Amino acid sequence: MKILVTNDDGIFSEGIQELASLACEFGEVSVVAPEVERSAVGHAITISDPIRVSEVERNGKFFGFAVRGTPSDCVKIACSQLLAEKPDLILSGINHGSNTAKSVIYSGTVSAASEGTMMGIKSIAVSIDSWKPKTYELAKQFLRKLIPQVMENGLPEGTLLNVNLPNVFPEQCEGVLSTKQGKARYVEFFEKRIDPTGKTYFWLGGKKLSFDTENDVDDVAVSQNKIAVTPITYDLTNYRFWEELKDWNLEF
Amino acid sequence: MKILVTNDDGIFSEGIQELASLACEFGEVSVVAPEVERSAVGHAITISDPIRVSEVERNGKFFGFAVRGTPSDCVKIACSQLLAEKPDLILSGINHGSNTAKSVIYSGTVSAASEGTMMGIKSIAVSIDSWKPKTYELAKQFLRKLIPQVMENGLPEGTLLNVNLPNVFPEQCEGVLSTKQGKARYVEFFEKRIDPTGKTYFWLGGKKLSFDTENDVDDVAVSQNKIAVTPITYDLTNYRFWEELKDWNLEF
Repeated sequence: MKILVTNDDGIFSEGIQELASLACEFGEVSVVAPEVERSAVGHAITISDPIRVSEVERNGKFFGFAVRGTPSDCVKIACSQLLAEKPDLILSGINHGSNTAKSVIYSGTVSAASEGTMMGIKSIAVSIDSWKPKTYELAKQFLRKLIPQVMENGLPEGTLLNVNLPNVFPEQCEGVLSTKQGKARYVEFFEKRIDPTGKTYFWLGGKKLSFDTENDVDDVAVSQNKIAVTPITYDLTNYRFWEELKDWNLEF
Repeated sequence: MKILVTNDDGIFSEGIQELASLACEFGEVSVVAPEVERSAVGHAITISDPIRVSEVERNGKFFGFAVRGTPSDCVKIACSQLLAEKPDLILSGINHGSNTAKSVIYSGTVSAASEGTMMGIKSIAVSIDSWKPKTYELAKQFLRKLIPQVMENGLPEGTLLNVNLPNVFPEQCEGVLSTKQGKARYVEFFEKRIDPTGKTYFWLGGKKLSFDTENDVDDVAVSQNKIAVTPITYDLTNYRFWEELKDWNLEF
């Protein structure tokens, strides 16, 4: 089968190299990824600027295509321009840092997978809960188990799997859970600083304010050294409230 | 009450000026918006770069704060740094061009509203189905009806209202519908071009491939000259499949 590997940490990251090497066990792999890190770009796409593509070597041989664009751009241009055939599977990651709770909304890793999902391609986003993962072995072992099941069972229309792994070796992992996207709240603040020319600038920071308590929530599971698998959909309609809204008096 | 007005077309757009003027009928208005157009940036936030803020005048008096960042950045920095108090309501728009179906995912207009929603602030995104709206009267009349109801009834946790209006005068409008996010599919392509220095670049284009048929879908309603009001949520979990996933054999 044909597999497209992408990410948001950029084509030179360690995580994408590990993911591509794992993907090679399953089929023919193409790598198309941002030329530089494009974290937290959410579902951004580039419409007001041209997109450049270049070929990238790693370890002395062709590794993939670097795109001057977002993760969503990468999947779009891969499927419409760079690959001879539509892939059977898209793997996005392995991201350095978890994509759980509110981060799912901002995540370039997840948005690349969802771009594939919207094209009807089975897609999996993979992240490790550390800016500096100590091993990719757990991710690889788990994907060897997950990928065949995704290919065999399929995924519902418009749904991808968002996999978050604890930063541990396989023998320390406490299992796998089907999880929900967490609702933990953050307090965000901007540090006000002065640049060398005397001008003010701001820099975004933040910390968790409240925590989820249910065990089957993505970031709770990861904090318990479990692998969290969350099915993510891109139909954002709140159906319960949609019914309720019909009773509002909106005609004028 | 205190109202924050923002958008993704930039602080100098016509739509935000009309929205701010309407908002003034309801309370004390602050405008915080991107200094330049940031359409299709989705839920992007700026974490690797500093953010600059400047004061902007329109028609010879202070209009609001221009932010060198995304719509999400604007809401974050407004609420944490620029405004003395958290607003009671966030209005995002009035966007030139509809934000229906798949566009909801990419929309900076909607993401600004959802940023507010995540902070627990009632939020409404407003778009007109035209790059060059011929009137803002329909939007204003409808908001005069909608805003008091949103303030009185409230909105469910994590849910915003995404309002899309046809590009018509009030007397041509065929009514209001509580709608669902459409599932229309697009075919996307990249035009391959050569720049003046001989280098290749790509530019994203696309067109609708399939259309929704149900009348209560956002873009169908708008095409019938109705106002579409879609409740949008940011819990992306596919709950039905979440249950099913528990039966997969994922332990290893």
